[in-house]
Amino acid sequence: MKRRQFVKQTAAGALLTGALAGCGREQRQTAPAAPDNTAAPAPTTAETRNWKMVTAWPKNFPGLGVGAEHLARLITEMSGGRIAVKVYGAGELVPAFEAFDAVRGGVAQMGHASAYYWQGKNPAFNFFSSVPFGMNAAEMNAWLYKGGGLELWREAYAPFGLVPMPAGNTGLQMGGWFNREINSAADLQGLKMRIPGLGGKVLERAGGVAVSLPGGELFTAMQTGAIDAAEWTNPYNDLAFGLHKAAKYYYYPGWHEPGTTLECFVNRDAFEELPNDLRAIVLRAGEAANQDMLADYTARNFGALKTLVDEHGVGVRRFPDDVLARFRELSAGVVAEVAAANPLAGRVHESWRSFLDAVGDWNTLSEKAYFDIRYN
Amino acid sequence: MKRRQFVKQTAAGALLTGALAGCGREQRQTAPAAPDNTAAPAPTTAETRNWKMVTAWPKNFPGLGVGAEHLARLITEMSGGRIAVKVYGAGELVPAFEAFDAVRGGVAQMGHASAYYWQGKNPAFNFFSSVPFGMNAAEMNAWLYKGGGLELWREAYAPFGLVPMPAGNTGLQMGGWFNREINSAADLQGLKMRIPGLGGKVLERAGGVAVSLPGGELFTAMQTGAIDAAEWTNPYNDLAFGLHKAAKYYYYPGWHEPGTTLECFVNRDAFEELPNDLRAIVLRAGEAANQDMLADYTARNFGALKTLVDEHGVGVRRFPDDVLARFRELSAGVVAEVAAANPLAGRVHESWRSFLDAVGDWNTLSEKAYFDIRYN
Repeated sequence: MKRRQFVKQTAAGALLTGALAGCGREQRQTAPAAPDNTAAPAPTTAETRNWKMVTAWPKNFPGLGVGAEHLARLITEMSGGRIAVKVYGAGELVPAFEAFDAVRGGVAQMGHASAYYWQGKNPAFNFFSSVPFGMNAAEMNAWLYKGGGLELWREAYAPFGLVPMPAGNTGLQMGGWFNREINSAADLQGLKMRIPGLGGKVLERAGGVAVSLPGGELFTAMQTGAIDAAEWTNPYNDLAFGLHKAAKYYYYPGWHEPGTTLECFVNRDAFEELPNDLRAIVLRAGEAANQDMLADYTARNFGALKTLVDEHGVGVRRFPDDVLARFRELSAGVVAEVAAANPLAGRVHESWRSFLDAVGDWNTLSEKAYFDIRYN
Repeated sequence: MKRRQFVKQTAAGALLTGALAGCGREQRQTAPAAPDNTAAPAPTTAETRNWKMVTAWPKNFPGLGVGAEHLARLITEMSGGRIAVKVYGAGELVPAFEAFDAVRGGVAQMGHASAYYWQGKNPAFNFFSSVPFGMNAAEMNAWLYKGGGLELWREAYAPFGLVPMPAGNTGLQMGGWFNREINSAADLQGLKMRIPGLGGKVLERAGGVAVSLPGGELFTAMQTGAIDAAEWTNPYNDLAFGLHKAAKYYYYPGWHEPGTTLECFVNRDAFEELPNDLRAIVLRAGEAANQDMLADYTARNFGALKTLVDEHGVGVRRFPDDVLARFRELSAGVVAEVAAANPLAGRVHESWRSFLDAVGDWNTLSEKAYFDIRYN
């Protein structure tokens, strides 16, 4: 599908459906219609702030783009239109990877992305997205909201004039699509895989070749054999990208992104100009959107996986134990390097690591112990 | 502190910080004090609605009562005080187990509890709280928000003039405190345990004696030997109750309540009188509070468990496999009986069951598969 077609198609129908997310029936009946992003902005009055949200996603892309629209709508609805947020897909106002600087510079008031996209500014940012063998979604939320993580994140973004907040989570991702079976760590030698960030560094140390490609180029790169493998997110998103048409094997678990936090960042001047009730609305909308996206992925992944297996004959495989053990061992080294990059990264890592150790122990007695017995 | 002072204080400074709530440490340090329920309500104007929230918890009880206060604060802050919510602990305005009828009758505008407390009105309500061998917190959220669960819940509460919403989650609970070791299913014979609801029915079928006691009486009942065992929630709450002083063994996992959803219910007339922006604020505040409570428990359980083990010498034990297998087998029968109670219960069960089967399959490949390898 071409980019323009995709935008057109989603603007008409999917936007409305997205508009109704997270709310159940009655509320849906009375919720105001979704803002029409193609219309001219409402006239500015003393009471109306017209805010732009730039995003790293195609407009209304399942999960991620829908989540950005949802956040915009929450703010618009709860503020009674006093903040009217208009969402721009990647490339509409600025390219995906310029969202951070656009909001920093005041081109837009808010952005929706994930912090590891900006790791070039500070490797510490990785910890606010997802790290190989790190926390799952519930653990990330606990660390960010209650364990000091969000305070560190604010400190990390402060020099850029941005106020960050969690605004979504994909949940545990899949390990990726492969054109050949991975039967042992030896099969990673020379494997060309689209896997960005820290996961890519781990793959390289395991003998593979990490390639960085935007999502929109994955399909062609897989189909032409330019790459042997690619990870994107999970069944709900991967089905939408059509990756099953270019690869036979779908591996789990997603060791490299066990619970990726999406972010919203707000231009600090725009935020601080707000009265207290609107500040609260922006921040709480981020919280509600964070949970909503995770619920969306959790509810849709299994249907998408069933479609992939039953209708498209995809072979679902678990990575062999020795491959996972190798990834885990190499991940520890990669994460340690990030921690050593600068003092802030060291402090973030320390907070993150001690929280993960403790919450991991707890989840061994709770979530893990329960999963172990529910179907035994 | 008098109400007027409180309003003044928060208006000046703390409201702003509160606006950043859910957001780490600062918020805790400067969060406004709980409103003083003994003071006269603020004068009503056309712009101010003074709402009462009755709860099933002691005021500011860790997790549950704190969650109710948090929800009240979110609504008050985001509405700029147009809805000023005052929280009443159990017994302050009405007893804990009369909250439902109090809101139904308009004595209060909202309540904070958990749906299984009202299973006497309709056994279907159990599914909106937690059911033995049912869904964990993330799965409950996915079912409620995205899988049709919340729509069924609204239908179930509609005859009572109430609008329900999820407003918290304890996460997976512990299996309870025992005065003797449970080494096999035979040890359940004659065991007198405080375990209410469906878990209690399961225990009875396993040969035990289920006792229903309010939380406040647990400690004495354990200490005097009136009961042999008691479940409450999880380390964060159980430590606060001092149950370790009355029992030696602390069992996991909490098969009977794998992810208990707390609820907020709003008097329908009060809700429908609201303009759209305030309706959105009430509903989205519930969403934010739902996530916030889970993060709170997730972040605090491990510290509490460490205190219980290291400082109080508590023995943490896993239930033996045959005991868990017996509980699982008996749970299926108890849940089937709830489903057969009436047509609504049957429909709720059908929705819940099919969602659980599907999401459970997905989590076997995702959350479970990840927990299995993270520390291996």
